[in-house]
This record gives sequence, structure tokens and C-alpha cells, in this order.
Amino acid sequence: MGNDISFDPNYVKGFVSQDELDEIFPEVQKAHDLLENKNGPGNEFLGWMDLPETIDEGLLREIEDTASDIKSKSDALICIGIGGSYLGTRAAIELLYPEFARQKVFFAGHNLSGEHLRELINELEDKDVCVNVISKSGTTTEPAIAFRIIEDFLIKKYGTDGAKDRIICTTDRKKGALKAMADKKGYKTFVIPDDIGGRYSVLTPVGLLPIACADINIRDLIKGAKSQRERSLECDLEKNMSYKYAAIRNILYRKGKRIEILSDFDYKMFFLGEWWRQLFAESEGKDSKGIFPTTCNLTTDLHSIGQLIQQGERNIFETFLVVKKEDTTYVVPESKDNLDKLNYLAGKDLDFINKRAYDATSEAHFEGGVPNTTIVMPERSAFCLGQLFYFLEKTVAISGYLSGVNPFDQPGVEAYKTKMFKLLGKPGY
Amino acid sequence: MGNDISFDPNYVKGFVSQDELDEIFPEVQKAHDLLENKNGPGNEFLGWMDLPETIDEGLLREIEDTASDIKSKSDALICIGIGGSYLGTRAAIELLYPEFARQKVFFAGHNLSGEHLRELINELEDKDVCVNVISKSGTTTEPAIAFRIIEDFLIKKYGTDGAKDRIICTTDRKKGALKAMADKKGYKTFVIPDDIGGRYSVLTPVGLLPIACADINIRDLIKGAKSQRERSLECDLEKNMSYKYAAIRNILYRKGKRIEILSDFDYKMFFLGEWWRQLFAESEGKDSKGIFPTTCNLTTDLHSIGQLIQQGERNIFETFLVVKKEDTTYVVPESKDNLDKLNYLAGKDLDFINKRAYDATSEAHFEGGVPNTTIVMPERSAFCLGQLFYFLEKTVAISGYLSGVNPFDQPGVEAYKTKMFKLLGKPGY
Repeated sequence: MGNDISFDPNYVKGFVSQDELDEIFPEVQKAHDLLENKNGPGNEFLGWMDLPETIDEGLLREIEDTASDIKSKSDALICIGIGGSYLGTRAAIELLYPEFARQKVFFAGHNLSGEHLRELINELEDKDVCVNVISKSGTTTEPAIAFRIIEDFLIKKYGTDGAKDRIICTTDRKKGALKAMADKKGYKTFVIPDDIGGRYSVLTPVGLLPIACADINIRDLIKGAKSQRERSLECDLEKNMSYKYAAIRNILYRKGKRIEILSDFDYKMFFLGEWWRQLFAESEGKDSKGIFPTTCNLTTDLHSIGQLIQQGERNIFETFLVVKKEDTTYVVPESKDNLDKLNYLAGKDLDFINKRAYDATSEAHFEGGVPNTTIVMPERSAFCLGQLFYFLEKTVAISGYLSGVNPFDQPGVEAYKTKMFKLLGKPGY
Repeated sequence: MGNDISFDPNYVKGFVSQDELDEIFPEVQKAHDLLENKNGPGNEFLGWMDLPETIDEGLLREIEDTASDIKSKSDALICIGIGGSYLGTRAAIELLYPEFARQKVFFAGHNLSGEHLRELINELEDKDVCVNVISKSGTTTEPAIAFRIIEDFLIKKYGTDGAKDRIICTTDRKKGALKAMADKKGYKTFVIPDDIGGRYSVLTPVGLLPIACADINIRDLIKGAKSQRERSLECDLEKNMSYKYAAIRNILYRKGKRIEILSDFDYKMFFLGEWWRQLFAESEGKDSKGIFPTTCNLTTDLHSIGQLIQQGERNIFETFLVVKKEDTTYVVPESKDNLDKLNYLAGKDLDFINKRAYDATSEAHFEGGVPNTTIVMPERSAFCLGQLFYFLEKTVAISGYLSGVNPFDQPGVEAYKTKMFKLLGKPGY
């Protein structure tokens, strides 16, 4: 379909051969079996796989109704969450929502900055506000602290009863501090399914509610994910783009390519890159292995780390993320005197030039020794984003199994927390 | 002095020994001689070295007067530039200027997004605007296109004469398209010195004018750089923190640490990290070598690539960037029912908790196999930022010489441009 995302391994020649793809295929088959038969490591967290086709119509309607209610009574939504309860939402909103739009979704609880909270609360002092706090446990330090402070702010502004109608908790079905708090105080709740880990949760209420508040069509998002699910069922490197991408990146990793750069050509994709970075780093970076995922925003970063990509240590591969449909807002105006010598571009729209920058960059980096592939989105839409989310989730699941790790756990994230709780005197540490 | 930045190699034990430091010292001495005697590769671009003490009082006054004039007649400054004509300015402003401040500095010309320009121009339609366009040549594609479009916007808004008083060009002293345009149209100009490359130019008018427009004291910035210059003259690993940092990173690189993560604990340091990334990548990433520089914003990214840093491939080292002075805006409020179990933090300010997160993270990452050092800023001030800019410039100059490259050129950035110009039909390509 012309409307589907696609994957082009256009510049891996000489780095990844058909023989190598054939050679890794039995491993891909094995990873596929582990995943589809649900008997691999982490198999208690596979709820994201069927989610796009099993998601409940009633739930979608409830999310949409809640979003309408939030929008009708507030100028701004504060979305409190961190990691998987933050990045996917922000990725969708920054990609699809106008940069300087008046009605805004703000984020809190994703750091420990008192200054950020102060400036946010100052900014929202005279506005009507709703809050969506997102935490499975309710005890994650950053969002829990932010929620205490922002809940106080709402209660001062609206009174206890008024605040009650403006706070929505997305949390565990039954247990945990946030669930208990919501029950006690009468806050509305949405459920984070037990079988979906944080970084795979963007298409649950975790992401869907705040995304809907930004006027993004969540049904299109789900439709996209559903179509991509169907497009990635078959264990075939040519027909299943997740499997092709997973195979290529593992072949490259085994040959010494340690760093993967996701390079987009659209500054609104910055947080999509951040979401990808968590998904890939947390799924694969363990057991002393894992490709190091990092991102570039082009052409901006061609004037920053472009030099290193072109001529630095050859331990890099690159994955471009481009949007096909052109934005024709601005064409380069003609100039009488042409002092800047840009008249050769007069009448061309910026996006056309941007796309030639992509063509040139992918070829130049390849020739410089950086193999690269490209993910193409036909357009920037909720449907394509849904496809992209699912494509990347499926890719990293297969890729993780290919490299012999459990792509669904994150045992290393406790190390600093344990030390921090001890330093802070948390009871029990 | 309690007011100076410092460098703590607190967690390199077992990764970098005193013997190794002694062993690399003769190379540091050689790099020092090349730099101070100005007879190393790239010695035509050493103007940044003495800049803090030679910068002209008249120039500073002219910058301040121009900034006052801009502020008096406009609600917003659009700053047009890319790479070294963009990142240092944005780093300073985002670090020291309130996030939601009303009078804003906006950026353009750092990408090829028509949508960004449209949204920016929509946002500024009803505001009074000045423009500072920054380009040595005036023909760099991104800023040149943005300037054509924004110049048109200003002329439509204010007429040719009105626009004339609102456009300031920072460019070459004599040659180039932007200089010719400014002369012909009567735009005010500031000079980018010939002997200072883009990524080392933040303390020239490139950065100083827009930074002054954001009410940041540029004399403090220069004072900081001057004091740091004096603190980094001696070739001594114990007394000269630039040399210590350069030595440690080269020792680690030679032992297989391919990736350096600059991890800050302040979301306002994001663009400082971006500036550092260009400075380090462009200075060292060449001749098929170079540490891969990347950044993390903590604690945000502990919930993203934290897992990989803790337990992934052990080819990483980390450089923390922390601010000592606490922001005591918010303390964690007491809660009667303590359902989120945070009362053990009640009365503690957020910054205190953030600092314990740093303590815990640096120790946990070290124990996990990631050697790390810390750059400490006593406070977030223009003076300390000036010190930091100069410290990092000096570090990378020495570090580049240590790894045998020319830290002042960027030959690889032309590769994609040549291809792009050909694809776009630029005359002569």
C-alpha cells in the first residue's frame, strides 16, 4: 500500500551480504518461534503483541470521552510520568501537534528539577489545568514527587472537590500506591495492563489519553499498529521489515559496528528518537552487550557530529527515518541581486531541498564507511506513527532474542536506585 | 577559589592508573608545546586561546548597546545560524534564561524545515522582531535560505527602511555574501574573527550578541573564560584540569572505551551537551578515529538508556556535569496518609534529592564497569559557564593533539554537501 511505512536497506552493500542474511535466518526463525509461541525469556510481557487488535472499543471510547472532558474544562494538561510513561506520549505529540499551539500538553515528573516545576506552575498559574499522572507503582521517585507538589497546586486552585474532577490516574488495575490513592480520593483511573512493560506501553492508556488530549486521532494510531502487526507475522526476511531490520543490525553488530545512529530529517522527530533510544537500549543493553543507540536530528547535526560520522572511527551504522510527503509551505524566494547565490533554488520548497540533503547524506555516509538503511514514513500521520511504533517494538523483540538477551526486562535500573534510597534514608534500605 | 569550576576524576580507579598518567605525560607535554608555540596542525585557528584577555572593551560595549537597542524595540530576537553559529548561543540561553520567559530568543536556519519557519513566523506575526543572522560566508544553505524568507517577512512588516534597523549580520570582516549584502543594504555588522573556527566561536560576537539579548551578563562570561585561561596555562596534570581530562579520556580510548557520555543532572543543560558534542565530535572524529561523544539528561535518561549504561557493552566512559549550588524552590510536602511512601523525603528540596541521585549513579555506573569523572560548576552563572566553555575548548585542543589529529579542521563536512549541491543543480557542481 502507498500508505504504509517501509524499510529500505539501500546502503548496506559490501557490509551485509545475502550469504550473511541466509546464514542468520535460522536464528531469526528461532527468535520468531520464541516470540510467537510465547515461550522465550520475558514471555510474561508480551501483551503489546496483540494489543492493536484486541484493544477494547469501550476503552477507546472512554479515553476519547475523558480527553473531550479534559479539553472542555482546561487550557492545559500536565502529564506526569517518566521513561515509558513519558517518551512515547511526547514523541507522538511533538511529531503531530503544532509547535507553538496554544492549548498545550505539558510534562512533569520526568526529572528532579525544582526549577522546572516552579516555572511550569508559574506558567499555568492563571490557566485551567487537568493532570494525568502515569505510574504503575505510584512510588517511582520523580513522578511521585511531582504529583505531590502538583496535587497540592490543584487543591489550592480548585479545592479538594474541584481537584478531584481534574486528576486522572493511569496505573495498575489493583495494586500499588497510586491505585490506592485514586480509590481513596475518588480520582478517575485508567489501567496499565500487567503484561505490557513501560517501554512497550505507548498504545495503552499510558499514551492514548494524553495523545488524545492533543487532538491526535488515537483510532488511526491503533489502526496503524494493527496493520503493521499483520504485516509482521510472517517469518520471512523479504516480506517482514522488522525481521530484515533486526537481522541487518545483528549482522553489523557482530562485525564490529557498536553504535547505531537513528538519523531523522525533521526536528519534530526528536522525541520519537528518544522513545526509540529507550526501547532499544533498555531491551538490548544487558549481559555486557548491546548496540549503543543514539540519535541525530538532521540537517542540524550534520553541522555537529557530521564530521565524525563521515570520517571518524568506523564502528557506526546509521538508520535514517524520513517522511516522504513534502511540506510545501515555503519556497525559496527569488532575489534580484542573488548575493547569497541561492537563486538556483528559487521556487523550490524547503522540504524538497531537505530530501536532497537526505539523498546526499545517505550516499556520502555509505561511501565514507557507514552502512545505512532507511525507514520511510509516507506521511506524518497518526496511522503511520502507529505502524512505526509497532514496527520498532517487533524489531527489538526479535533483535533482542537474536543477540541472546531478554528484551523485556531491565534488571540494571535498580543499581543506582538502591544506592540512592540508602543515601536518602528510605526505610528498608 | 570556591567560585571556580573543578574536575574530579573520582571514579577511574582500576581503569586509569598513576603509571598510565605518567606514561602519557610526555605526549601531553608535546601537545602543550604544539598548542602554546602555535606550530601544530590547524595553528591558523588559535584565536580562541587568547580571546578572553584580548577582547576589546569597545566591542563589548557595542554588543551591549546593540542588545539594549534590540530589546527596546522588539519582543523577540530571531537568531539565524547553524552548528557553531547556533549551539553555543542556545546552550548559554537555555542554561541561564527562564524556560517560559515572555521575551524570547528564537532560533531559525538550523534545519531545512518549512514547517518550523511557518510556525515561527505565525508565532511572531503580531510581535516586534529583530534578526541576527550569523554566517561567516553567507552561503551556508540552511541559514541563507532562512534569512531570505525572514528578511522578506521583516520587509513586509516594517518596509525596507524599517527592516534595515532590525537586521544585524555577524559575518566575515571583509569577504563573503553576507558581508556584501550587509554593505549593500546598510545592515549593521559584527565581525567573526578569521582565526576562530565555528565551534570555538561562542565568545565572539557570534554568541555574545544574542546571549546579551537574553539578559545574560557577557562580561561575566568573558571574565570566567579569562580566569579559566589563566588556570590552564601550566603543563601539569594535577594543576591543569583540561590536561587531566584530556589525558584520562585518551587513556580510556586506547583501552577500548569508544563512547563518552556527558551526563548532566539539569534539563537546562541539554544544549550545553549539544555544544560539547559538536566541539568534541568535530575536533576529534577524523582519520578513522575519535571517541564517540553523546549526552544524557539525568535523571530522565536513567529511565531510558540507564539500563545499557549499567549493564551493556563495556565500551563506555562517562563524564558527569553537575551544579553544586542547590535550588531550594520546592521541598517535598508532608502527606497525612503517605500512600506513596514519600514522607521520608518530606522537607527535603528536590535539588537535594537530585544530588543524591548523582552520588548514587556515579558510584553504581563505576561499579558496573563504567569509569567516570565529574565536572563541577559551583553555580549556574555566566562566570562559571565562561569557565566551562574555555575549559572544554582547551581540553579538546590538547586531546585532539594527543590522538594525533588536527582539532581545528572538519574536512569531512563537505562530502554530503558536494553531493547535495549536485543533486540540486547548483552552478559549478
